[in-house]
Amino acid sequence: MNKPLLCKLLGLVAMLIGGSMAFGLPWALPICGGNWQHEQEGFIGLVGSMIICFAVGIGLRYLGRNGDAQLFRKEAMAVVGLSWVLATVLGGLPYRLSGTYRTAGVRMNTVDAMFESQSGFSTTGATVLSDLEDPDLVPRCILFWRSSTHFLGGLGIIVLFVAILGQGSAGKALMRAEMPGPSHHTPQARMQHTAWVLFLIYAGLNTALAVLLLLEGLSLFDALCHAFGTMATGGFSTYNASIAHFATVPGLNGPLIEMTIAAFMLLAGTNFMLMYMVLIFKPRAMLADIEWRTYAVVILVVTALVVAIGLYHHDFDHCGADRGKTELLADGAGEQPLPVGNAVRYGLFQVVSIMTTTGFCTDDFDKYNSFARGVLLLLMFVGGCAGSTGGGLKVIRHILFFKTLWLEVEQAFHPSVVRPLRLGGEPVEDQELRKNVLVYFGLIVAIFVISWLLTITVEPNATWTDHGHAVEHKLVDAATCVAATLNNIGPGLGVIGATKNYTNFSPPIKILFIWRMMLGRLEIFVLLVLFVPGCWRNQ
Amino acid sequence: MNKPLLCKLLGLVAMLIGGSMAFGLPWALPICGGNWQHEQEGFIGLVGSMIICFAVGIGLRYLGRNGDAQLFRKEAMAVVGLSWVLATVLGGLPYRLSGTYRTAGVRMNTVDAMFESQSGFSTTGATVLSDLEDPDLVPRCILFWRSSTHFLGGLGIIVLFVAILGQGSAGKALMRAEMPGPSHHTPQARMQHTAWVLFLIYAGLNTALAVLLLLEGLSLFDALCHAFGTMATGGFSTYNASIAHFATVPGLNGPLIEMTIAAFMLLAGTNFMLMYMVLIFKPRAMLADIEWRTYAVVILVVTALVVAIGLYHHDFDHCGADRGKTELLADGAGEQPLPVGNAVRYGLFQVVSIMTTTGFCTDDFDKYNSFARGVLLLLMFVGGCAGSTGGGLKVIRHILFFKTLWLEVEQAFHPSVVRPLRLGGEPVEDQELRKNVLVYFGLIVAIFVISWLLTITVEPNATWTDHGHAVEHKLVDAATCVAATLNNIGPGLGVIGATKNYTNFSPPIKILFIWRMMLGRLEIFVLLVLFVPGCWRNQ
Repeated sequence: MNKPLLCKLLGLVAMLIGGSMAFGLPWALPICGGNWQHEQEGFIGLVGSMIICFAVGIGLRYLGRNGDAQLFRKEAMAVVGLSWVLATVLGGLPYRLSGTYRTAGVRMNTVDAMFESQSGFSTTGATVLSDLEDPDLVPRCILFWRSSTHFLGGLGIIVLFVAILGQGSAGKALMRAEMPGPSHHTPQARMQHTAWVLFLIYAGLNTALAVLLLLEGLSLFDALCHAFGTMATGGFSTYNASIAHFATVPGLNGPLIEMTIAAFMLLAGTNFMLMYMVLIFKPRAMLADIEWRTYAVVILVVTALVVAIGLYHHDFDHCGADRGKTELLADGAGEQPLPVGNAVRYGLFQVVSIMTTTGFCTDDFDKYNSFARGVLLLLMFVGGCAGSTGGGLKVIRHILFFKTLWLEVEQAFHPSVVRPLRLGGEPVEDQELRKNVLVYFGLIVAIFVISWLLTITVEPNATWTDHGHAVEHKLVDAATCVAATLNNIGPGLGVIGATKNYTNFSPPIKILFIWRMMLGRLEIFVLLVLFVPGCWRNQ
Repeated sequence: MNKPLLCKLLGLVAMLIGGSMAFGLPWALPICGGNWQHEQEGFIGLVGSMIICFAVGIGLRYLGRNGDAQLFRKEAMAVVGLSWVLATVLGGLPYRLSGTYRTAGVRMNTVDAMFESQSGFSTTGATVLSDLEDPDLVPRCILFWRSSTHFLGGLGIIVLFVAILGQGSAGKALMRAEMPGPSHHTPQARMQHTAWVLFLIYAGLNTALAVLLLLEGLSLFDALCHAFGTMATGGFSTYNASIAHFATVPGLNGPLIEMTIAAFMLLAGTNFMLMYMVLIFKPRAMLADIEWRTYAVVILVVTALVVAIGLYHHDFDHCGADRGKTELLADGAGEQPLPVGNAVRYGLFQVVSIMTTTGFCTDDFDKYNSFARGVLLLLMFVGGCAGSTGGGLKVIRHILFFKTLWLEVEQAFHPSVVRPLRLGGEPVEDQELRKNVLVYFGLIVAIFVISWLLTITVEPNATWTDHGHAVEHKLVDAATCVAATLNNIGPGLGVIGATKNYTNFSPPIKILFIWRMMLGRLEIFVLLVLFVPGCWRNQ
């Protein structure tokens, strides 16, 4: 392992994080709508964090001053893994130094700060902050930093993606499309080209969504924060009611804002390479892609089922009544919403939000019927497409998993017939790939089960009973906590339902959540590389 | 596929089932304690069922009169698979023809009868009968037939085991020990020898337990029924309170009976080949066996944890109070039981009962703390040792699963180092085996998830709300239903808790349960062979 190079690159990451914090500072100033009295501590905390970041960065650059430019795969994976650890620690400083309040009267401790930071960088969107709307508890500049971590996390995913691009058969199968580009260049140059293209698409979509939200009446602050939360499939909002907040504001068109965000969540869960193909006028690449087709079909089918079964169980009856509608009616904006339209509006949003692993909410799906609750819990494990900012296991892995099972069962009875695994008609054979997919599923199941058992054992019952929840729900709630953090979603069922948060969990379990978010985001293997001693030996 | 041979063998199975029904008849007679008034319908139902079984058997033998003696693996698997289907149908006849009552006033319909029959043959022990103690509802002779299906199911498992013995690498790994026997004989002769040895051990243990229970004061009827339920890891009792009943009977030593049954459950979950080794004075084979050691350690560790955490949560405080103790005290039998002794008594029994997939109960573990509930739910997927009558995934598959994951993760970082998979020090390499274990886990996860989703979607909420259960528990309860049937256990949590049963489920879901019990028992592949069209073509 080339340690000087590692230090050099990590120093760069630390400085990048410190620099990014600067963008939070203006929101503390009165000229940008900040109330200095509330923002003072946040401002000081951010500045202090920046100083520490730069100090760490300069220190690491000094240690790595002799690092050369040769970056091998092992180093690339180690850099990404360690960057995430470093980002979690440094990104948590502003919360800690500003003394932000978790709930009224309780300041965030170190574990809380790390949790919020990891949740941001891993684009999970799980929060320990129970009141975002009181600037006395959470300063606006800290809120902006919180959403910025989503943007940076999304960037990190793109870097990770480029790093594994075309590496090994599994990487190739996950990518499928070779990145079009100047073919006479070196692989290094191609990688840089790819990284730039993906970055520009990501930044472009963030900008486009922010502009649209501005046009739809949001403030610049809200527009930027929600654009970051959407395009990174993060899910941090600046309101306690998440996206549902906008429907309650007179003058704002709630449904329009919701559908805009839903559309961009769909894009955020799409392979960015495919979007590039569409941009260079090859739109058929997207429709021809088996993963994207499956992704779209799953969303459509599940939405249809959630809407149909939800209408039968009257799941959406309250939606028009206790939010949105009454305000809109009071505002004289419109007539009684149609039940079906209402159901589609809320059903589609929740399904897209969970499937893309964003975690924004416009309704509390914990109140839905059992099918909807169950299927949303399963969708958490599906996630977005490979090459998107979405989390979860990724659609392509599920396709490969079921195809592998099918082929293996068939082969058990016809040992003489060996059929290759096909993706969209193309054979993508090798036996390694089949095994790798099965191993990945096996690891996820093992991590899920062990984490679940730890959570139900270690977490005291008081987390449920002291906050109005029945302890009988501990098994399900814990399962959704694990699913929602491992797959980088955020909300789940029960104690972490759409209107709840992670604030009441005990510190050991919060630390477990932090690791799980990182494991999920880095797809296990990248993180494991840090713990295999052999990787650290030279050569 | 050699169809005449198939018919011939299936005819034999039908006649065997018919013949076995005869053993139920005496219990209807006054001389054996039957009250003819209650037993009349049961007797007629049994006789009618016997006639149908023999008619079917003779018909099948006639169809297969030209079948030759060559039995290949494919035929063996098909015979086992089809026998199970045939047994389910024929074994359900006595319930249907005797008009046994599911609950007071509701006679068993065809689905109920098939469910009870499949539950017996697959040694699951899930029941739709809500009152076993009223001979007006369930005649004694039918109750005996019900327990006999466990005995026959256990026999079927032994046949299945011999059929797959040494077939392919997976079969070899599952077996590990080559069966010692006359080595100069043909494979056919060795197979027959193995089958006889295993049968004698099985029958011997059944007899031994029945005699012990007789000596401990049970009636012959109860002793036989509970011996069948124990040694087949079935779980059908003749009392509503399952094994907990005996502690409430004055004059019986509840703890002694419970520990006797627990000891035999442990044996029933042990590889029968290892018991043979012990019988031929090679007891070290058992202690040296990695699977048996793991099995024993898991039971010890989980029991210790359930007892310790249960004492902390006061899970066992009620045990002494509302059952057993008061009666024993009233009987002047003894002093106040020690809390720890009490906890060990109840904790050990539930853990052994679930781990071996028997499903007998002396306490309602749904009332335990979350850790105990969760860990028992997980133990359902572990099950007994390969080569036992236990269900579940089997301990050896879990060992192979975790070893494979470990080796694969290691190999991802050291592609040059290829280490073989070792079991108890011996390398059992091949790549096929690793993949097969992963495929098996994948199939179980897929079946579990799909069944769970179907159950929560199709089963009406009324199954919960009409019977005093909160519909919010549907997700967990459905998961335990799936786990308890797929792994052939019986009881689970909530609506199917230790004191509940499957009577209230809707017919479509009962049919799903029937399939799942069969899938679990036949370890998926044997059943799948019936649905692969290519297998039915000649040559």
